[in-house]
Amino acid sequence: MITGKNYIGFSLSGKGTKTYKTLDPKTNQENPTFFIEANSEEIDKALQMATAAFPVYSNMPGTKRAQFLNAIADEILDLGDELIQTYMSESGLSEGRAKGERGRTIGQLRMFASLIETDHWRHPIIDKAIPDRAPIPKPDLRQLLIALGPVVVFGASNFPLAYSTAGGDTASALAAGCPVIVKSHPMHAGTGELVASAIIKAAKDTGMPEGVFSNLNSAGIEVGQQLVKHPRVKAVGFTGSIRGGRALYDIAAKREEPIPVFAEMGSINPVIITSKALKNRATAIATTYSKSINLGTGQFCTNPGLILAIESPALTSFINDLGEKTTAIASQSMLHPNIHKAFENKGTEVIAQEGTTLVARYKAEIPNNHARATVVTVSGTAFLNNSNLHQEVFGPFSMVVKCSDEAQLLDVISNLEGQLTGTIIAEEEDYKSLQPLIEKLQNRVGRIIINGVPTGVEVCDAMTHGGPYPASTDSRFTAVGSQAIKRWVRPFSYQDFPEELLPGILK
Amino acid sequence: MITGKNYIGFSLSGKGTKTYKTLDPKTNQENPTFFIEANSEEIDKALQMATAAFPVYSNMPGTKRAQFLNAIADEILDLGDELIQTYMSESGLSEGRAKGERGRTIGQLRMFASLIETDHWRHPIIDKAIPDRAPIPKPDLRQLLIALGPVVVFGASNFPLAYSTAGGDTASALAAGCPVIVKSHPMHAGTGELVASAIIKAAKDTGMPEGVFSNLNSAGIEVGQQLVKHPRVKAVGFTGSIRGGRALYDIAAKREEPIPVFAEMGSINPVIITSKALKNRATAIATTYSKSINLGTGQFCTNPGLILAIESPALTSFINDLGEKTTAIASQSMLHPNIHKAFENKGTEVIAQEGTTLVARYKAEIPNNHARATVVTVSGTAFLNNSNLHQEVFGPFSMVVKCSDEAQLLDVISNLEGQLTGTIIAEEEDYKSLQPLIEKLQNRVGRIIINGVPTGVEVCDAMTHGGPYPASTDSRFTAVGSQAIKRWVRPFSYQDFPEELLPGILK
Repeated sequence: MITGKNYIGFSLSGKGTKTYKTLDPKTNQENPTFFIEANSEEIDKALQMATAAFPVYSNMPGTKRAQFLNAIADEILDLGDELIQTYMSESGLSEGRAKGERGRTIGQLRMFASLIETDHWRHPIIDKAIPDRAPIPKPDLRQLLIALGPVVVFGASNFPLAYSTAGGDTASALAAGCPVIVKSHPMHAGTGELVASAIIKAAKDTGMPEGVFSNLNSAGIEVGQQLVKHPRVKAVGFTGSIRGGRALYDIAAKREEPIPVFAEMGSINPVIITSKALKNRATAIATTYSKSINLGTGQFCTNPGLILAIESPALTSFINDLGEKTTAIASQSMLHPNIHKAFENKGTEVIAQEGTTLVARYKAEIPNNHARATVVTVSGTAFLNNSNLHQEVFGPFSMVVKCSDEAQLLDVISNLEGQLTGTIIAEEEDYKSLQPLIEKLQNRVGRIIINGVPTGVEVCDAMTHGGPYPASTDSRFTAVGSQAIKRWVRPFSYQDFPEELLPGILK
Repeated sequence: MITGKNYIGFSLSGKGTKTYKTLDPKTNQENPTFFIEANSEEIDKALQMATAAFPVYSNMPGTKRAQFLNAIADEILDLGDELIQTYMSESGLSEGRAKGERGRTIGQLRMFASLIETDHWRHPIIDKAIPDRAPIPKPDLRQLLIALGPVVVFGASNFPLAYSTAGGDTASALAAGCPVIVKSHPMHAGTGELVASAIIKAAKDTGMPEGVFSNLNSAGIEVGQQLVKHPRVKAVGFTGSIRGGRALYDIAAKREEPIPVFAEMGSINPVIITSKALKNRATAIATTYSKSINLGTGQFCTNPGLILAIESPALTSFINDLGEKTTAIASQSMLHPNIHKAFENKGTEVIAQEGTTLVARYKAEIPNNHARATVVTVSGTAFLNNSNLHQEVFGPFSMVVKCSDEAQLLDVISNLEGQLTGTIIAEEEDYKSLQPLIEKLQNRVGRIIINGVPTGVEVCDAMTHGGPYPASTDSRFTAVGSQAIKRWVRPFSYQDFPEELLPGILK
């Protein structure tokens, strides 16, 4: 049952005075529950409890924390249809997507649970003493990763489950041994509360200390700001806009004790198509990319917003084909009227820039908050001269840049801001000459895909979901995959410890 | 030969108008060479060359970069006595220390060379495709650490060799594949230029691209500020004061593209002595610690500036004994008149605080810039009530805090700022009850030493030299040991790459 209250530790709490409701973007109708924004007292209490829970929770054996994570997964499944219906009513997303995202969320929790069954993920290093080394003996040194402390996780608008309350940031931080305080996303506060109730139930059932998790409602930016400023908070996870992520980064950097902010932000995910690939299979590429552009109504951070190729008649016909196919796919609702409005405005802004040509825009009547998929094109020179064209249009929008030659294409890549991904569509005969392109692109992105699409971020060990700024605030870490756990830990050295005082894995 | 000029790539350059000299603190006489501060044009050129060198250098096989690092070590040795004499005349440190530090510097270079002989340090992960996975196939993903880009290293006043021009920051960044621009420390600009000449010679001899290294002179803060603001710089290494490190961190955080600053800053390195240890071996502990306090004239970031124990007659006599022994060791010159003055002033300031008692201060006549070793004591309550007592006094200075009981001792630890190290002096019979103390201390430090001294930072795989702020700006990385290389890299994923385009280690 959704109460509209916050979870401060194990207790429901609604002491604040600000309330808000969520909205179904498919109908533009508000959902019934009033959510009560957390007040300063509740924020303080959540952090006080998290700080008290930290030494207990972080020093627990990994197997105990793994039980907790697995129990969260079970409890989320147990929420059954109420969760799926709430998710759909707060996001406009389909039942298939809801269930798929629930599966991914559960998969992530179980992956981290399995990771921490042993302490190998803590990168144990044993450097034995050399007592007879000259001129001075070498001491015994052993190193292990340890948890940072309480972590604040901001729910993401575009992943109500997989990157919100019990999403990748929460799962990885809890796995690492950090208590988590979630700043719930206001657009799906009901989904958030349901998932929070599952986490609280799992925490109680598996004997976790109270304070290991809290869930705070918030409609505006104040709660988030207070959390990031709070001296008891030791790290922050965020997925969202560049403006939002940078604001949090700036607050954290100004603290007396600065803390890391892992903000995964905007990206236009350049796709480079070689002339040979265009010549051989333009139609298939257009079909594949029309789907990738529309996937999740374009509301993925890996949406292919930029396609680069060298001018040719084949490119011209590809562009027209891509436009047709992209706008032939039935329009879907976006997550929220605000997101829909921003998509419409930004798209229109880009089309109005000098040198851009509108290739196609979805024409059929659109119901409430449905997105009009859009394809535009521009010359390489115009693109290079206008950084307004380099910005993300969040939604089903893609721009094809017609480069005059290979040199201009490389120049365009060098002038891009940092990106999550880059994709190269190439023929086998191209491979031997791709190295310069790969090197240029590698310097701007966190992941390169050959002959695929950037959408679909595999949750696995070798995934890098992050990249040079502004794709993320810290390119040295990934937000997706098992290594996301590294964001919440630091190395610690045990020097000349007697055996009995060493952690098991270092013995 | 020392010219006083900058190295901009392979060329000596002295286009600036500001000049300065170094000073021998033992005589208070200036050394002869005029050093010419780098100007904006030279800074730009160094960064332009570093940026051009980056793709070539970072994509070179590790074995080639290893040759370069080993050649630097050889060339530093080849500088022979000129380097040792210059070092001594610019730092007031002894010949033994000069040679020891040279040995450490060379050891670090060779350690990183050996680390990068293979690509295993780049943490390769191979996640193979599962083409028949339902509902969608799993792509092939492989991950490797790649270099960030040009790095700026600030020379440290207290390590003219091991943490300056070719010190740990430079060696690890060069090993990672990052070109390095050194902001030379003005107090030992001659030592810096000599070592820079060795790096340049090694770079030429091993076929490195020009721009892989530059050395910039600077007397004030302007060159450093310009470097950290420069858009081509991708990371910064610094060892020094909290004020200096924080200023650089703040500049980097305000950039359009924020970059990581690894500043290793102040620390008072708490040492906890159990009552049983005091009872059994107070004299031996006092002897050991009087030496550790005086080591390097107290000018180590791991100097034991704070000793904690529970009140007892044994503690009182230990304090007096420590005072006598610490001030019985012959006084030595500090690195520079400014450092000496700061030591005198800060020490006097602390002694003037309410509740502190001066136990002993070095009494004999002191020559130019020699340090008066000092031991003070204070009650746990007074310490807890006055954060002025928690600040570092850089030099041979230590404060013994007399705690009323175990609870107050734990309280003192919880109220400390972040530290590089913590030390516990305990008897075997104490071990079974040490866990709560270790947990509290672990939360505040990067390394705990049992029954040793914090000074002497072993260069090895398991070393953590870093800690919660303000010990360092980023506790997630170490500044010493082989893992210091991780500061200069980020993960990168190869998705569905054909075999021929994968780096060797990922095949």
